[in-house]
Amino acid sequence: MTEHPAGAPVIGLDLGGTKIAAALVAADGSVLARHTLPTPATRGAEAVLDALAEAARAVRAPDAAAVGVAAAGVIDPASGTVTSATDTIRGWAGTALAAGLAGRTGLPVACDNDVRAAAATELSGLGDDGVLLYMAVGTGVGGAVAAGGRVLHGSAGVAGHLGHLPSPEADGLPCTCGATGHLEAIAAGPAITAHYERLSGEEADRLQTVAERAAHGDPHATAAVTLGARAAGRALGGLANALGPHRVVVAGGVPRIGALYQDALSAAFTAELMAPLRTLCPVPPRGGADAAVLGAAALTRTLPLHRPHTTGAPR
Amino acid sequence: MTEHPAGAPVIGLDLGGTKIAAALVAADGSVLARHTLPTPATRGAEAVLDALAEAARAVRAPDAAAVGVAAAGVIDPASGTVTSATDTIRGWAGTALAAGLAGRTGLPVACDNDVRAAAATELSGLGDDGVLLYMAVGTGVGGAVAAGGRVLHGSAGVAGHLGHLPSPEADGLPCTCGATGHLEAIAAGPAITAHYERLSGEEADRLQTVAERAAHGDPHATAAVTLGARAAGRALGGLANALGPHRVVVAGGVPRIGALYQDALSAAFTAELMAPLRTLCPVPPRGGADAAVLGAAALTRTLPLHRPHTTGAPR
Repeated sequence: MTEHPAGAPVIGLDLGGTKIAAALVAADGSVLARHTLPTPATRGAEAVLDALAEAARAVRAPDAAAVGVAAAGVIDPASGTVTSATDTIRGWAGTALAAGLAGRTGLPVACDNDVRAAAATELSGLGDDGVLLYMAVGTGVGGAVAAGGRVLHGSAGVAGHLGHLPSPEADGLPCTCGATGHLEAIAAGPAITAHYERLSGEEADRLQTVAERAAHGDPHATAAVTLGARAAGRALGGLANALGPHRVVVAGGVPRIGALYQDALSAAFTAELMAPLRTLCPVPPRGGADAAVLGAAALTRTLPLHRPHTTGAPR
Repeated sequence: MTEHPAGAPVIGLDLGGTKIAAALVAADGSVLARHTLPTPATRGAEAVLDALAEAARAVRAPDAAAVGVAAAGVIDPASGTVTSATDTIRGWAGTALAAGLAGRTGLPVACDNDVRAAAATELSGLGDDGVLLYMAVGTGVGGAVAAGGRVLHGSAGVAGHLGHLPSPEADGLPCTCGATGHLEAIAAGPAITAHYERLSGEEADRLQTVAERAAHGDPHATAAVTLGARAAGRALGGLANALGPHRVVVAGGVPRIGALYQDALSAAFTAELMAPLRTLCPVPPRGGADAAVLGAAALTRTLPLHRPHTTGAPR
């Protein structure tokens, strides 16, 4: 589906709630230029589209062939619109993201959800029969599944919602989706913090506070972090049995709290695995700090490109 | 990967522990001839290969172009061998299934696991972006996942082992795979029977006995059947959230015990679903009694064909 010159660089844009990161990415995946600016989240969708265009302009080369945008929320790559989103960006749901940005840059635009975009950077080397399982643990528990060289979108764009599997560790706990007992209700960052508060009777403002208390030997903090990690590891191991992945990635802010979390997740993951999978090990994302913009850039090679309606000179 | 004349009929063989079913299947999917014979399971692999060849001969037309074989156990379609198998057929593990049958029939042969073959018959109409989730509940809990028009094989051929997800209903119960708390430990047929025995203190020789007692109002039998169905439905619903399937099939002997099971499974499935998936409903397999042989025949169109080494006239 490559509809732009194969050797030309492309622009990757990562839209977050607080900042926009932009990169000019060469065909070989190297980053030629970077720029970041604040997301004008409170000023609405048009202001955010203007800021995305400004970020693209800041890294653009004369031969840049396309723009890939990765954004939070449910994005429909076929129509190029934001299907649904939280209120982090005012009026963001319903925005014609691809058309708005194609009009502003004069370049063809591809867009998708940010987690799927990051997962797309993990596909290289897997081949056509390769299966990728990608879990992102942060404010929620999300992820992506890829097979046949493509990240699955699934019915209603739902594929990748790994946080809504039944979890024995979450038994009876209400989930953000309305059901009870889902993984996200015990394994997401805020869920670990809430579980610490339940165990200890103490308040904690955020997960980092719980992680620091665990590092100082607080047994309730250690228990909450370990339980969240174990729940995530078990669910991921069960999914591995169901899908037979060749690569398992655990991304997001929660795993970065440290070895206590990572070791508990890995141990729980391994304990679930069927014998033929026992060599499988969850790994951190490969792209490092550039993963988001590299993933955004990679969207231009696998997803539909939305072309600007006018054929005049790019602005 | 069609390597035989597109319009020619193919032979589908379904190898079970007690019988071999054969069908000659036209290009349009209609069954032109059927034959069954007993599986000489105790007489070893060579005798079973001979019986498969005999079944193929019984339905064969002069223009038959290829043979597809569906068999239980872990089958490697690339090498055409039985990677591992239970002792149902003596000496079956390690058998060169495709080569042995190609030599005996003079026709190219494709082979795969029987559940994957049956799932392949459910792919039509799904399209390239379609995702299929197929659960088979019987002596074990297995299944298949398909995306991009293909049934996934996964690392070590493991994809489709849906019975080895953590299940809150199976907490603490030992699973056949060596782990504890997996779906199969509470939802497979023998697991439902065992759970009935634990609840009631009564013996039951098989699942059908438990189902009959449930039909007569036995509260322990009702509870065991319902719990197995609920565990399967919850796990399937969680997988649906993770994969966004367009079609969800529940197959196998256990669902056929009746409405008590099917209704409990469907209700538990629906309760797990994220809002955009709420219209999704598990359905029984489409192929009816012919599903296994139709699936076997379909393997010749999607998997590698193993050709006979000799180019002499087919026997």
